Amino acid sequence: MKDITSKLSLVGKNLQGSEIRRLFEVSMQPNVISFAGGMPDPDSFPAQQVAEAYFELLSERGELLLQYGPSRGTAEGVQAAGYLMSRHGIRVSGEEILITNGGQQGINIVTQVLIDPGDVILMENPTFVGALGVFRNARAKLVGIPMDSEGLMPAKLEKAAQDCMNRGEKIKFLYIITNFQNPTGLSLAPERRPEILQIARKYDFLVLEDDPYGELFFKGPRDRVRPLKALDTDSRVIYAGSFSKIISPGIRLGWLASTPQLIERFDMARQMMDVCTNPLIQAMADRLCSSGFLDRHIGNLRGIYAGRCEAMLAALKESMPGGVTWTKPEGGFYIWLTLPGPLSALKMLPKAIEQKVVYVIGNASSPDQSADASMRISFCHEDEKTIEEGITRLARTIHSMMGKSK
Amino acid sequence: MKDITSKLSLVGKNLQGSEIRRLFEVSMQPNVISFAGGMPDPDSFPAQQVAEAYFELLSERGELLLQYGPSRGTAEGVQAAGYLMSRHGIRVSGEEILITNGGQQGINIVTQVLIDPGDVILMENPTFVGALGVFRNARAKLVGIPMDSEGLMPAKLEKAAQDCMNRGEKIKFLYIITNFQNPTGLSLAPERRPEILQIARKYDFLVLEDDPYGELFFKGPRDRVRPLKALDTDSRVIYAGSFSKIISPGIRLGWLASTPQLIERFDMARQMMDVCTNPLIQAMADRLCSSGFLDRHIGNLRGIYAGRCEAMLAALKESMPGGVTWTKPEGGFYIWLTLPGPLSALKMLPKAIEQKVVYVIGNASSPDQSADASMRISFCHEDEKTIEEGITRLARTIHSMMGKSK
Repeated sequence: MKDITSKLSLVGKNLQGSEIRRLFEVSMQPNVISFAGGMPDPDSFPAQQVAEAYFELLSERGELLLQYGPSRGTAEGVQAAGYLMSRHGIRVSGEEILITNGGQQGINIVTQVLIDPGDVILMENPTFVGALGVFRNARAKLVGIPMDSEGLMPAKLEKAAQDCMNRGEKIKFLYIITNFQNPTGLSLAPERRPEILQIARKYDFLVLEDDPYGELFFKGPRDRVRPLKALDTDSRVIYAGSFSKIISPGIRLGWLASTPQLIERFDMARQMMDVCTNPLIQAMADRLCSSGFLDRHIGNLRGIYAGRCEAMLAALKESMPGGVTWTKPEGGFYIWLTLPGPLSALKMLPKAIEQKVVYVIGNASSPDQSADASMRISFCHEDEKTIEEGITRLARTIHSMMGKSK
Repeated sequence: MKDITSKLSLVGKNLQGSEIRRLFEVSMQPNVISFAGGMPDPDSFPAQQVAEAYFELLSERGELLLQYGPSRGTAEGVQAAGYLMSRHGIRVSGEEILITNGGQQGINIVTQVLIDPGDVILMENPTFVGALGVFRNARAKLVGIPMDSEGLMPAKLEKAAQDCMNRGEKIKFLYIITNFQNPTGLSLAPERRPEILQIARKYDFLVLEDDPYGELFFKGPRDRVRPLKALDTDSRVIYAGSFSKIISPGIRLGWLASTPQLIERFDMARQMMDVCTNPLIQAMADRLCSSGFLDRHIGNLRGIYAGRCEAMLAALKESMPGGVTWTKPEGGFYIWLTLPGPLSALKMLPKAIEQKVVYVIGNASSPDQSADASMRISFCHEDEKTIEEGITRLARTIHSMMGKSK
């Protein structure tokens, strides 16, 4: 077969590779400092604890843990997810949980079960590139809502919902990353949270709350990261959780929490996708939770990422030219940096690569390509010294572009 | 929210739970003998080898194996898949492999990338229930092709392809399980294999070859299970492989082998589904392959399943009333049994459950519900003594139904 194009589906024809993944090759070159990936610090992975848990569990009951598991998740997987929900004061029954192969699969399942082509998904602008890809494959209409330093702006959300209603469009859900958002690092202010739910009720749409970073706050109090799900009085919020950032992404473990009626649908969709999640990994996660290890481990992670964020913020302050602005996250992995005037993060990227530093262009994360002046820079993966050097290189690149653009 | 129905997509509304999974609850009751599941014998799982591999690998390079991996699969995953392909005499480069979370995910990926609503998928009638579910969710037109004891009938395939062409329908691919088919246990005769490919060329459709059971032949020679992929001269065959039946299903490890052009698309689709497959599991599979363990292990599995199949065939011969017919598999997990005259496997199921034996009704596997008199009985999960007892119970049930229907 010379050309397979005629065999492709509409989705198959329109597929696009992830912008971020394309940068991986560049960032693998020697001496390149990568602020592009969202990969956690590998030195922080609890390899020994995971290895011991696997070994013990397989010795105890390998015949069960190597078999197919229930598509909803095993009792242990559900318990591990429930443990993380309970840290936010949320109680869920087993019928309200579906274990997934990481947060991305959760987004994919929800989209398949809820979205027909043309349905509206409201979302922060910018938002997570992986979610954008899923929503585009489903041919949803993407409506981005502006953010300020307090996160998604409720008045803008209401305006957008009203506009959709006026146009007769069907809003299925708001996709929102409430804590330390990807890519901005911003969080939705606590006082805005009930307001957002109020608007969801008024315009009768669901909320898909993606919360992989909520545990990674640098300082308390914890109630600043309390999810929308904790305030959800009418089963309107679908919560997508993940172990990727607090145990490891390679284990591919996450969950959805929602009403039993929806979880049943999500489960049926998931059976067809890949049957079930590895039972051994669910048992391992439960062991790390119930032994108290994960709680201590999360404490360590907060310290690591707080230090890196601080180093990046200090280096930015030290070296960035006037007119460049950036967010000041209080948790998570990311800072969002915006160039002044007519500068384009896309056009600057080759220059940055020459300087051996890479980032993710803002438009990769923007549903309407309105973030050309911005970029996501991650502090999760490089150590503090490297972060300083990388920001110096980035500042040099921006200085030279600003000189040119004058 | 009282009713979420208005929020569901067309797919979400039409989702159906797997018939087989519904039987799980029944088969978990005490003293029920289940011929329903396709779960491998758990005592055969290489728990110790898996445990040791995980422990060593995490000690050696936990920081890499717990990180996100490439969405295509790691070098080790690709090597493990390549090892199993090479046992069939098939050589593939890294660009021709995509590692998946088991065979089901492979089917799901191929369907998303190739199928638009209304496209035709040709398939054996009956066929794998998990594939049927994926194809139905994609709103494909399902065209079942009859089988005889030599597998899919080439003349019937050509007739169906011609009919589709005459109706102006677009055939995207033939889905076929070439070896020890699920649910019939039948294999496509070696002399039919080039014929099938010839028809695919003539009518210009692709072939999705699903081959989870090929290694589990009871007797040689091996060239009787040689996949269509080995005869594929124009990159027409997409091969879906799986480690589920030869290492364990819980590890969720499979692969797709196809042309680089299609693998690239499959990879892009897969990134949006769940990012990547667990790198540790890929490294473990490679270690079991390259150490020679898996080869010996497969030898043991063949002996186990051959013994069970033999026990089931002997018990069937011993106890079944005249008019009942069944297939005689030379490998795999399944026998397909057909009741005489007007009997319905669906209507008989409650009686069988009373007798504490369960099976999968034929129509669960039939694209056009034409298999009401048939059932799939699995010999993979119960030991030989239990198989004998279960077949006795089943024969008793059939006898009593035949008495009634007179």
